Order: sequence, then C-alpha cells, then structure tokens
Amino acid sequence: MSSHPPSIRKLIDQFNKLPGIGPKTAEKFVFYLLSQPKSDLAELGQAVSHLKDKITTCSICQNFAESDPCDICRDKTRNSQIICVVATSSDIPAIEKTGVFRGLYHVLGGVINSVDGIKPQDLTMKKLVTRIESKDVKEVILALNPTIEGESTALFLSKLLHKYKLKITRLAQGLPTGSAIEYADEITLQNALKGRQPF
Amino acid sequence: MSSHPPSIRKLIDQFNKLPGIGPKTAEKFVFYLLSQPKSDLAELGQAVSHLKDKITTCSICQNFAESDPCDICRDKTRNSQIICVVATSSDIPAIEKTGVFRGLYHVLGGVINSVDGIKPQDLTMKKLVTRIESKDVKEVILALNPTIEGESTALFLSKLLHKYKLKITRLAQGLPTGSAIEYADEITLQNALKGRQPF
Repeated sequence: MSSHPPSIRKLIDQFNKLPGIGPKTAEKFVFYLLSQPKSDLAELGQAVSHLKDKITTCSICQNFAESDPCDICRDKTRNSQIICVVATSSDIPAIEKTGVFRGLYHVLGGVINSVDGIKPQDLTMKKLVTRIESKDVKEVILALNPTIEGESTALFLSKLLHKYKLKITRLAQGLPTGSAIEYADEITLQNALKGRQPF
Repeated sequence: MSSHPPSIRKLIDQFNKLPGIGPKTAEKFVFYLLSQPKSDLAELGQAVSHLKDKITTCSICQNFAESDPCDICRDKTRNSQIICVVATSSDIPAIEKTGVFRGLYHVLGGVINSVDGIKPQDLTMKKLVTRIESKDVKEVILALNPTIEGESTALFLSKLLHKYKLKITRLAQGLPTGSAIEYADEITLQNALKGRQPF
C-alpha cells in the first residue's frame, strides 16, 4: 500500500521508468520538485513536453539536431573528408569535448546485436554508404565501443566499406589515462602491447 | 563546448538539478526520452507542470495531500490518540508499509540543524503542541533518523512535550534485520545491548 496522493504516485511511477532510476530515487525527485517553486516545475514540464517538437534528425549524419543539416554538417570549417562513425548521438559530445576531431560524424543508431535482434539493416549503414559514394570521403573512423557488439559491428562495416578507396581506422585500445598496469585486465594489457607506439 | 542542440542542452541542465543527478545521467535521461513517443513526453511534462496544482498541505499533520484534512487524518479507523512525529513526508510511506502503525502522523518539515541554520521555529513544532493541547493525545512517537540532528531534535521535542501528560517514545535502535553482529558498528551494537528485550 502506498500512502502517497495520486498525483505524487503518478509522477513517481513515471520517473521510475527513466534508465537506472528505482522507486526510491523517483520518490526523492518528486519530493525535491515539491520543494521547488511552481514556475520551475512549469519550465521543466514544458521542456519535457516539447523536447521532440524542435528536435529532428540530420539527414546527413543522422544525429539529433534542431536544424537539417545539423550545425556540425553545415560547418564549412570542418573536414568533410573524414567521417567518424559512432553508435549513438550521445557519443558525439564526448568526442567533441576532446577538441582533436574536426571532421564529420555518422550516427549508426546502435550496434549489431543478435540478442536484442538488431540487424545491419536496422542501422543507418546504407546511408553511410550513400554518403561515401556521393562525396569525396578519404577516411572513416570506426568509433565504436570496445565490446563484443561494437567490435563485430566495426568488423561488419570494415568489410562493407572494403571496396571503396578510403582509409578505415578505429580508436586505439590500451590503458586508460591514470590507470595502473598492475590492475589492468588481460585484454586491455594485450591491446596496449599490440598497439604500442614509437616513443 | 557542448555539441547538443539548445533544447536538449536545456533539459539536460534541468535534470542536472535533481538530487544526485550529474550531467551524464541527465544526458542519459534526455536521450531515453528522445526515444519515447511524443505522447509519453507530454504525459510526463504535464505531470511535472501540474504536480503542485492538486497538492496541498494537510492542516492537521502537515503532510502533502490532495485533500485537507488528508486521507490519513480523515480515516476514522485510525487511532487519533497516537501521533508519530516524522521529519519529512517521505518517511510516512516507509512506516505505512510496515502495516503495524495505525495512529496519525505529524510532519516536522525537517530537523534542527545548526549547520544549515534550521531552528526549532522553522519546524512545525508549534502546530504539534496545538494538536496535543486541543486533542486527547496519549502517546507521541518520535520517529526521527538515528543521526546527530535527528537525536537532538528528538531531545528538544521530548523536553518541549515534557509538561503534557503523555507517553513519549522513540523508535528502537539496534541491529538491522539480516545484518551480522561481527560487522556491526560499535554504536549500533551498544544500542542493541542497551535496548535488549526479554525473549
């Protein structure tokens, strides 16, 4: 039995659906919101309700954007000859923050995953091929997670793009900054050895 | 530099204000919401915007409610001679779930905390005294967290209510269910020994 009034219970149930949020945290959110001024609630409510109103998908890179083409694809100062392929939109801010990549992106919309039934045709691979065929692309960076699914998707893509005259690269695997060799797992250390660089 | 479109960035910033939510989790929420149908977003947005529209404070127990008096205070089957004093509204569902308490509540609205500058007059103590003076209350249970602030608030209240003819009790402190004596901290074990019960 819950002793919460219906409107509180309803919002708890809805927050509970957010990824990684259990009923206790959802409850904490609602009580936090109850302590905020009505105007703040209205603002948050509006932002949630209208989130998708302005958001579209960039027809070039398939990233979420408020304009089509998106800001990155329209940016003439960026190098359109390099495409960095990522699984999801949320990978892009992480790469942008590094400040070392000034090419364009392509969002696959996921990775091949037989357990979840995600097949190559569910991803935006065809659109990537069209981009490569129609534009002068010199390099494709496969920036996919170093997981089974990420690796096999990268392998699939590298075979698919094999016939085009372009460099296919992938992100380096090795020791993360600040880590200890002593505690590194075998595969990370194997990759760090295999990918060793001239000093 | 963030490469998110403004409407995404705005909602990330707002989720970021929720207790315990950092920018990465806030971003995860937004990308989750982007994957949901517009109707679900509208529903969540509405629930947030209108959260406080229906919610009022029960004039008797000071709990959040959709009616005044609240469902608990209006419930004639409950024992109005026992008042369980809690710090916040979110303590009530936990106690209700136990199913062993059938009295009424009183929400203090916090605990005395010199660091945060919360003084007795910031809490609903006066209203508790008025309840005790005007109704036939036999017992007050001080259900406050076993922390420095909770304990000192309980001590303050017990002195304040001393002059009234009523039983003042507090929740038992001891070993939590399923725990191991071996790993119990000293104070918990001290309390478990002091509060030992006839078998």
